[in-house]
Amino acid sequence: MRVRLVVEYDGTDFCGWQIQPNGRTVQEELEKALKSLTGENVGVVGSGRTDSGVHALGQVAHFDVTSDAIPPERYATALNGLLPPDVKAISSEAVDCGFHARFSAKRKTYEYHLYESEFTRPLKDRYAARVIGKLDDRAMNSACGYLVGRHDFKCFLASNSQVKDTVREIYLAEVTRRDGEVVFSVCGNGFLYNMVRIIVGTLIKIGCGELAPESMRDVVESGDRKLSGKTMPPNGLILKSVEYEV
Amino acid sequence: MRVRLVVEYDGTDFCGWQIQPNGRTVQEELEKALKSLTGENVGVVGSGRTDSGVHALGQVAHFDVTSDAIPPERYATALNGLLPPDVKAISSEAVDCGFHARFSAKRKTYEYHLYESEFTRPLKDRYAARVIGKLDDRAMNSACGYLVGRHDFKCFLASNSQVKDTVREIYLAEVTRRDGEVVFSVCGNGFLYNMVRIIVGTLIKIGCGELAPESMRDVVESGDRKLSGKTMPPNGLILKSVEYEV
Repeated sequence: MRVRLVVEYDGTDFCGWQIQPNGRTVQEELEKALKSLTGENVGVVGSGRTDSGVHALGQVAHFDVTSDAIPPERYATALNGLLPPDVKAISSEAVDCGFHARFSAKRKTYEYHLYESEFTRPLKDRYAARVIGKLDDRAMNSACGYLVGRHDFKCFLASNSQVKDTVREIYLAEVTRRDGEVVFSVCGNGFLYNMVRIIVGTLIKIGCGELAPESMRDVVESGDRKLSGKTMPPNGLILKSVEYEV
Repeated sequence: MRVRLVVEYDGTDFCGWQIQPNGRTVQEELEKALKSLTGENVGVVGSGRTDSGVHALGQVAHFDVTSDAIPPERYATALNGLLPPDVKAISSEAVDCGFHARFSAKRKTYEYHLYESEFTRPLKDRYAARVIGKLDDRAMNSACGYLVGRHDFKCFLASNSQVKDTVREIYLAEVTRRDGEVVFSVCGNGFLYNMVRIIVGTLIKIGCGELAPESMRDVVESGDRKLSGKTMPPNGLILKSVEYEV
C-alpha cells in the first residue's frame, strides 16, 4: 500500500530533508517513526529536498508498507505520537501506486519572509531573514513580473549545482508587505538548487535601489550567476505547498 | 546617569526574567553585557518579572551607570553587539532619576496566542499554545467584558502567590481571530502572578462551551481559584508593552 503524507516542520534544528551520515534530518525522523510504528524498514520519498534550516508547512512525501494493519488515514495521528515537536504529519491518505511524491509533483509554492531592522529581532528571526534598511516593496513586486513565464533560470543556479536543464516555468511571483514583513511568494513547476534564495537576494538589490526593477529581465537573460544577488539565508524560506494533478 | 531600555526577547530558552542561581535569565544576560560594555557592575531593574518561557516584545528596564562615556541612546546598539540572538535592546534613552521601570509603570499590555489543532504544529508552537477542538471566539470575547474595570481578581491568583492586594484595574480585554489564531489581548494597571495565563484557561472553558460567557462574572465575584480555569503554558504569552506617564 502506498501512503501519501503531508508534513510540517520547523527546519531550524534539521540538517535539511535528506538523510545524511552526520546530522539530524526530517526524512530520518519520519523513517525512524515508521519503523517503530510498523516494524518495517520504510523508505520515505519527499517531493524534493529542503536545505538545512528551511521550513515547510506542506511538504509532501510517500512511502510503501506491506502491512495493512493501520488504515492509511490513521498514519498521520499514529506518527505524530512518535515524532518530535519540530516535525509533524498534517494528513495521510492511500494513493495509487502510480503516485510519486517527487515525479508526480506539478507545482510548488514557496514563501520567503524578510524583516527590516538594524539588529536581530528575537521574535522575528526564526522565520524571517533580516535586511538592514527599508525595502521598496513596490519596486520588488514590479521586478517579479520578469520572473513569470518559462525561462532559463541559469542565473539563479547555485554555482555548485550539477543540473543540466535550467529551464523552469514560474506561474506566480509577487512581493507583498504583511504584518511588518516583506514576503516574496512564488509558485512554479520546479526550482533549481537555491533558486528562491538567490531570487530574493536579487530582489533585495532592487528593493534597496541598487538595481532598477527592469534589470531583473537583464539578469535572467544573461544567465550569469555573477549578475544575480547573493544567496539569502535559509531561515526566511518556507515550502508552503506541493500540488499534484487531480 | 539613569538609562531606560526597551527589550525584546524570545523566552523559550530563558528561565524567565529574574536572575536565579541555576538557569539562564534575561536580566543576567543584560547585566553581563553591561559589565563588559562599561566595566561597572550594573543592576538592571525590569518593569516586572516574566516567567520561564514567556516572550516580550516591549519589556522595559532601567539601570544606572556612573560613566558617561557612552551616550544613553547608544546603549541599545552597543548592547546588541554583545547580547545573544534571543534578547536584544530595541531602544535606550536617558531618563530622570525619578523614573523607575517597575514603580513608575502605569499600564501593561499582554497578548496570549492560541491555535486549534489535534497535534503540535511545528511552525505555530513556539509562540502560541495549542487547544484541541474549535474555540467559540465570540463567546470568549463576550466574556471579556466582565474582566474590564476595577475588580478583586483573587480567582486568578496562582495558589502559591503570597500577594495580599489582589485588586487590579483592567482597561481593555478582547479576543480576536488573527491569521488562524485566537488572540487574547489585555491591558491593565498590573497583573497578579500567572493572572493572564489563568484568565486564558478560563476563557478556553467558555470557548469550548463548558461555561457560558456570563459565568466569567461569577468566577470573578467568587474570588475562588477553584472556579477559574487551568494555568495555560507560557509559550503563548507575550508582554507587548509597558506604558509610563509622560
